[in-house]
Amino acid sequence: MAFRPLHDRVLVRRIEAEEKTAGGIIIPDSAQEKPSEGEIVAVGSGAKAEDGTVTPLDVKAGDRVLFGKWSGTEVKLDGEDLLIMKESDIMGIIG
Amino acid sequence: MAFRPLHDRVLVRRIEAEEKTAGGIIIPDSAQEKPSEGEIVAVGSGAKAEDGTVTPLDVKAGDRVLFGKWSGTEVKLDGEDLLIMKESDIMGIIG
Amino acid sequence: MAFRPLHDRVLVRRIEAEEKTAGGIIIPDSAQEKPSEGEIVAVGSGAKAEDGTVTPLDVKAGDRVLFGKWSGTEVKLDGEDLLIMKESDIMGIIG
Amino acid sequence: MAFRPLHDRVLVRRIEAEEKTAGGIIIPDSAQEKPSEGEIVAVGSGAKAEDGTVTPLDVKAGDRVLFGKWSGTEVKLDGEDLLIMKESDIMGIIG
Amino acid sequence: MAFRPLHDRVLVRRIEAEEKTAGGIIIPDSAQEKPSEGEIVAVGSGAKAEDGTVTPLDVKAGDRVLFGKWSGTEVKLDGEDLLIMKESDIMGIIG
Amino acid sequence: MAFRPLHDRVLVRRIEAEEKTAGGIIIPDSAQEKPSEGEIVAVGSGAKAEDGTVTPLDVKAGDRVLFGKWSGTEVKLDGEDLLIMKESDIMGIIG
Amino acid sequence: MAFRPLHDRVLVRRIEAEEKTAGGIIIPDSAQEKPSEGEIVAVGSGAKAEDGTVTPLDVKAGDRVLFGKWSGTEVKLDGEDLLIMKESDIMGIIG
Repeated sequence: MAFRPLHDRVLVRRIEAEEKTAGGIIIPDSAQEKPSEGEIVAVGSGAKAEDGTVTPLDVKAGDRVLFGKWSGTEVKLDGEDLLIMKESDIMGIIG
Repeated sequence: MAFRPLHDRVLVRRIEAEEKTAGGIIIPDSAQEKPSEGEIVAVGSGAKAEDGTVTPLDVKAGDRVLFGKWSGTEVKLDGEDLLIMKESDIMGIIG
Repeated sequence: MAFRPLHDRVLVRRIEAEEKTAGGIIIPDSAQEKPSEGEIVAVGSGAKAEDGTVTPLDVKAGDRVLFGKWSGTEVKLDGEDLLIMKESDIMGIIG
Repeated sequence: MAFRPLHDRVLVRRIEAEEKTAGGIIIPDSAQEKPSEGEIVAVGSGAKAEDGTVTPLDVKAGDRVLFGKWSGTEVKLDGEDLLIMKESDIMGIIG
Repeated sequence: MAFRPLHDRVLVRRIEAEEKTAGGIIIPDSAQEKPSEGEIVAVGSGAKAEDGTVTPLDVKAGDRVLFGKWSGTEVKLDGEDLLIMKESDIMGIIG
Repeated sequence: MAFRPLHDRVLVRRIEAEEKTAGGIIIPDSAQEKPSEGEIVAVGSGAKAEDGTVTPLDVKAGDRVLFGKWSGTEVKLDGEDLLIMKESDIMGIIG
Repeated sequence: MAFRPLHDRVLVRRIEAEEKTAGGIIIPDSAQEKPSEGEIVAVGSGAKAEDGTVTPLDVKAGDRVLFGKWSGTEVKLDGEDLLIMKESDIMGIIG
């Protein structure tokens, strides 16, 4: 089931941070308040100005990105938990 | 009875999520806070800029869409419960 | 007594919903929170941009419209209760 | 003493609604929350856009208008109580 | 000591309203909530748009003006109490 | 150590008001709520519009200015306490 | 691991202020509320206007800058604590 985000929205698969040590102990980590890492799954056609001009987004499917931990709306598509957010919630591209 | 949404508004028929298991048991589901699914019934002629320019919408009648669970205003037309919302409340198109 | 709404305002006659059953019993109805129906009585010359450009409205006298239940300001003209509201309070046209 | 309102402001003389019956009894009237009626006494040269463009107002001295009951600032000029308000506080023209 | 207001600011000398009767009795007067009268002492070069365009002000030194009683910031220049405010705080010109 | 303010920011050295009488007695003075006086130490290259246009500032190093008492952010550069603020916090130029 | 900030964001390495005296005693310092110093590590391609125009930033990698103590979002990249903030949070360039 394909999903096309509208306008300047992107669909993101969250990459869970490793929260266990090598020995498997869960570490309560203040780092959990830091930005989350994710992979862009799909992007909208671009931001739409009031006069109708469409500006393509700067991220593309496959990009690994950082975004605010609380950004976006959770959505389940084909049984997978994904996030829909605006490109402006993306802080930058890793890699 | 036809209804023409004004400007950048759309008329949406909510598609209720299946909340029962195969055996018919209702599952209280946190997923209820997730976006709702719907079908576009009618769309306005487009967003109108301050200078009068009209930009047609990116969704059309028949599109299956996701929208914020609490978006839109309920309206009963010909005995059917529908929703009027702005295109900006639509997160994306499924299909 | 004529009344010309200014700019992007419209004058609306509310059409009261039937709240009685065939047998005349008043039904307390949650539907009362739904949009109201009305008829456009008069419209302004159009929205005025900062540079003075006037964009004519998309509704006209005689249109049957839906608007938010709490939209507009009540006004009594020639003994009739009417509503003055902005075109942006109109959700769409019925018909 | 002349008074020239600045920009998109207008000077308005409030026309008090008749609040007595023929027999002189004062009727406490919820209608007092409705818009007030007034007469335009003087108008500014027009709204001024950020780039300096001036757009003349749509009301003129002598117009009978409706405005929000609580709009404007009271001012006493030559012993007369008048109101200074913005044209956007004017709902429409009667006549 | 000269003072040049910046951009769309003006320097105003407040003209105190007469609050005494002929016999010298001070009258507590609700009129004190009404606009204040003043004289323009100096004006800025004009409002500056985002693109750098400067639009000269519509008031000039010597104009008698009305302004909101609580508008502006008090400043003492050469021992005199004056007010610095934006032109948009000026309601109109008397005279 | 040089400091170049960014965009429409300016660096200001506060000129402390004399708060003592000739005889050296400190006078608690309501005037302390009035604007502060300062000297411009350095200015940014100018305000930057959304389209990238840069508009040079109207104040320059050496200007004596008035600014809101609580404007700006304190910063210590080379051991000296200075203020960084936006040009829009400057009310006007003295002299 | 490279990180490319998006649009008008910059990646900053905070330069901790020396909080000890020569003798090594930690001084609780109100100066901690003052702006922080940092070094630009990477910059985005520029601010993007609604019409798609990109305006390059005025800071570049290697610049020593001052920024509001509470600006930005902490992020750990390759084990190093860095900050992502918008260029508008940068007050100026030292050097």
